[in-house]
Amino acid sequence: MRLSKLVAERTKEAPSDAKMMSHILMLRAGYMKQVANGIFTLTSLGQKACLNIENIIREEMNKCDGQEVKFPVVMPKELWEVSGRYYSIGSEMVRFNDRANHPMLLGMTHEEAAVHLAKNWVNSYNQLPCMIYQIQTKFRDEPRSRGGLIRVREFTMKDAYSFHTSQEDLEKYYYEVHKAYEKIYERIGLKNVISVKSDTGMMGGSVAHEFMFLNHNGEDELVLCEQCGYRANQEVAECIYQEAEKEDLLPLEEIDTGDAKDIDSVAKLLKTDATKCIKAVVFAIKKEEGTVVCFVRGDKEVNEAKLKKICKKDIVPFDASSEDGFCAGNIGPKGLKAKNCEIYFDLSLKNQTNLVTGANKEKYHFVNFNIERDYGKVEYYDLSKVQEGQICPHCGKHKVKISNGVEIGNIFQLGTKYSKSMNMLVKTKEGQEINPIMGCYGIGVGRNLACVVEENYDERGIVMPLNIAPYKVHISPLRIDDNTVSSTAFDLYNKLKENNIEVLIDDRDCMPGVKFADADLMGMPIRVVVSPRSLQNNQIEIKLRKTGETILASVEESLNVLLEIIKNNKNI
Amino acid sequence: MRLSKLVAERTKEAPSDAKMMSHILMLRAGYMKQVANGIFTLTSLGQKACLNIENIIREEMNKCDGQEVKFPVVMPKELWEVSGRYYSIGSEMVRFNDRANHPMLLGMTHEEAAVHLAKNWVNSYNQLPCMIYQIQTKFRDEPRSRGGLIRVREFTMKDAYSFHTSQEDLEKYYYEVHKAYEKIYERIGLKNVISVKSDTGMMGGSVAHEFMFLNHNGEDELVLCEQCGYRANQEVAECIYQEAEKEDLLPLEEIDTGDAKDIDSVAKLLKTDATKCIKAVVFAIKKEEGTVVCFVRGDKEVNEAKLKKICKKDIVPFDASSEDGFCAGNIGPKGLKAKNCEIYFDLSLKNQTNLVTGANKEKYHFVNFNIERDYGKVEYYDLSKVQEGQICPHCGKHKVKISNGVEIGNIFQLGTKYSKSMNMLVKTKEGQEINPIMGCYGIGVGRNLACVVEENYDERGIVMPLNIAPYKVHISPLRIDDNTVSSTAFDLYNKLKENNIEVLIDDRDCMPGVKFADADLMGMPIRVVVSPRSLQNNQIEIKLRKTGETILASVEESLNVLLEIIKNNKNI
Repeated sequence: MRLSKLVAERTKEAPSDAKMMSHILMLRAGYMKQVANGIFTLTSLGQKACLNIENIIREEMNKCDGQEVKFPVVMPKELWEVSGRYYSIGSEMVRFNDRANHPMLLGMTHEEAAVHLAKNWVNSYNQLPCMIYQIQTKFRDEPRSRGGLIRVREFTMKDAYSFHTSQEDLEKYYYEVHKAYEKIYERIGLKNVISVKSDTGMMGGSVAHEFMFLNHNGEDELVLCEQCGYRANQEVAECIYQEAEKEDLLPLEEIDTGDAKDIDSVAKLLKTDATKCIKAVVFAIKKEEGTVVCFVRGDKEVNEAKLKKICKKDIVPFDASSEDGFCAGNIGPKGLKAKNCEIYFDLSLKNQTNLVTGANKEKYHFVNFNIERDYGKVEYYDLSKVQEGQICPHCGKHKVKISNGVEIGNIFQLGTKYSKSMNMLVKTKEGQEINPIMGCYGIGVGRNLACVVEENYDERGIVMPLNIAPYKVHISPLRIDDNTVSSTAFDLYNKLKENNIEVLIDDRDCMPGVKFADADLMGMPIRVVVSPRSLQNNQIEIKLRKTGETILASVEESLNVLLEIIKNNKNI
Repeated sequence: MRLSKLVAERTKEAPSDAKMMSHILMLRAGYMKQVANGIFTLTSLGQKACLNIENIIREEMNKCDGQEVKFPVVMPKELWEVSGRYYSIGSEMVRFNDRANHPMLLGMTHEEAAVHLAKNWVNSYNQLPCMIYQIQTKFRDEPRSRGGLIRVREFTMKDAYSFHTSQEDLEKYYYEVHKAYEKIYERIGLKNVISVKSDTGMMGGSVAHEFMFLNHNGEDELVLCEQCGYRANQEVAECIYQEAEKEDLLPLEEIDTGDAKDIDSVAKLLKTDATKCIKAVVFAIKKEEGTVVCFVRGDKEVNEAKLKKICKKDIVPFDASSEDGFCAGNIGPKGLKAKNCEIYFDLSLKNQTNLVTGANKEKYHFVNFNIERDYGKVEYYDLSKVQEGQICPHCGKHKVKISNGVEIGNIFQLGTKYSKSMNMLVKTKEGQEINPIMGCYGIGVGRNLACVVEENYDERGIVMPLNIAPYKVHISPLRIDDNTVSSTAFDLYNKLKENNIEVLIDDRDCMPGVKFADADLMGMPIRVVVSPRSLQNNQIEIKLRKTGETILASVEESLNVLLEIIKNNKNI
């Protein structure tokens, strides 16, 4: 490809709303262009890198005996009614009526379509296990798109669906796909990736893992124990607590705390610690009257995912006011009079004594509040987030670390949620009819590309790993008007193309500095400089973008040297 | 791939609404499954064949210096407002509001997105010509989906957009893409393909060609002169006429024709010929008051595409009644009193004498009607369809033939419609700022696959060309329970996989007849039969699906024989 014709521009600056380096660099190097909020066009730089990632994914899925299929993007409402998801999924799913006024939707995921395809055709144990997958455009109307390709509304995704006769067989296969995913990340050039236990969310099922690219910009919080290897998404990480120190129960007192409303002010005023206070967090229930109040220890934060699972309601944070029967800033268990209010206590409060809590009236708190004595017997649930330094729930010994991550893949053990609701039956070896057990496995192409850039750049620009680079070689002929330079460069260019090596040539008549800066910014792994000076010695210069290593090769040998570097690919 | 695990079933019958052989066979052989009207899931058989077609298209586009990009499927209204197409395109375009209530649409084509990408980045003549293309899912809400993948609502399409500084340069490039398309059809195995001049439709522009797969099931009518090579879509084919024989003008008479309303009855009653009658065809104008009446010679049919271009209205056929001022069955030019009625005369009526025409009153026709004498001077336009046997408009000598075809690709010279409306400017060599001249080039992947099947089948099933076959080799081990058969077959299977040959093995324990019938139906180009009988002579049987040619090869040589057949590929 001639750089002069490449529909992509290099710029010094990125728009000010671009914060993540992958976002900034992919815009500055011309890998993509924004069309609307969370919607991008990929230039050939971006698209070729994505196609390389897709092919790696395809190869690894085929090695797991995956069958590549293509489900429709647009599906009729009926298909999603049987599983119940037509109603349970909110406004992130696009719905429209077709010209015959039939309700349709844009598929966000394809469990229903997978069962629709396999149903009737797959009906005996000897057809299982089997796995079907697709690589396809998806649209999810995300409320907050961010970070360029990190979180978008339209994206290309590989989604796979497997069918099994037993949980054992699913687990065996699940582990195989887990290994295939690790292989994919390795091949595309992503290093800081771990898998963590995760929530099953809208998919249903019991066990799920997310592959997380560790990065301080990641939206997900991960709980990691470096000693025992425990890894979980904050959403599902369990809290365990050391036995609270025993104290004598002191008499309950109601105290004027004036304008002190939040935990810090109250604790400061009363010369105590946040750990000795009860924090009240109020949630509204979507589409229902009433509220959910969660009481946690003053230093802890409510984990909404856990609370949702326990209270089984679709809740959202809520600013409680007197209209709803709350005395904001002074909410406590004792004397709470809000109507239709469900109350939950977090495990962090169990066995805690002599606490500070709101007295449910303006300006007043209780001190020396003891839940059982002053309120009654309650159940405690694990409802709060794990904090850095808390005890590892797995080994029970070491302190956990909290890291941030970007989810770059997920795998789910779905169980029979979809095969059951859609009445898919297979005969077992023993002649029994069962609903097959399913797994599903997702990976987003563009987000992975963005993470690769996030991990591979320097002050000069992107450092593309060889395996996914849109062009493996970037030829920079200095002084293109020099006939020897030009013919040597184009000769090498043509020979590389004949050898099926993707190659870019900077055929512009511009300053060497511009050529070098552009090459560094775009980040192709191998740069070839053809200059009048080195040609005097019949040499060209080969430079590796990642290491800066420079090789001088004779004009005649240069092709072979390049082919050798590419063949010995260590994902430079 | 093991056939036992393939998520695809072979059936004896196809649904009764499947009429075209490609539709019937692709359903019966398990290449696809219908999800909704005009919406299909492709199984791995269908999808692998499509991916092979996509790769051939990709290679040929890259040879034309095409840059593969990816535009969004979902686009904001604004992008389509500038070109005016947000309003001019009807209900075949899906529109919806996103969660922020912003109007969005599903892209049917991407001229606007192409200009959006290239604009600002491409601004100088030395960046031109350039071409960007994508291979992408499109949704068009077709009123009539038919013929399986022939006409669907969701499909994968390659769409390309080129930019030029001059019409000359566009024409040169247009011709190059024309050749690339011919190469694509040849490589995917389609023979009966011609290119014809076509209407530019909603794309705008002046010159366009369609590539037509000649087939009696095709919806398009083509006008062909076998002698001079003239080829055009009926929509744009020109009518020319021999000079009418001169007759003396006879006196106009009004005659009671009773209940004779249509041309045939009137001509029969009056003992004359349809060619001596005037046919009136009435159209309503969409979203407007009024009608358009087109008068053509009795034996001719109105060509709506031509009429639309002349009258510049969006018209639809209309049953005229007295309410609108028409006397249906007796409509003629003389005395027509309908309000807001535009009248057009077809070229077929020019210089015709002593005609029969409606008298605009119940039961009456005029005979010996002569347009100039009895009605006045009129303009004649070319508004009717070319008929089989009419004179070729190109050579003016030979008679044309009418054939049917399926449109399998189109190329357009767009002009500056989009670059102008979106204000894209490039500097010419002379420093002048111009709107670049554009071309666009489309090809549908699934429809091409369906046409390949339509052209390549026999009474036993599909005959897949080697280049696009989902699996090149289909191994049928007879008596899979025989250890020697099974190990020989799987040994060959594994070796072919090691050589990156896509191979299917029928690992089912079933009758040879079932295996042969399934293999024939699915249509992989090379079948290998491993049977206890031939193994007695240390041989396996290789059979070509297309020719039936059978080769016996020793077990040891079989791999090389197969690799040789594939290498010498003549698209068997």
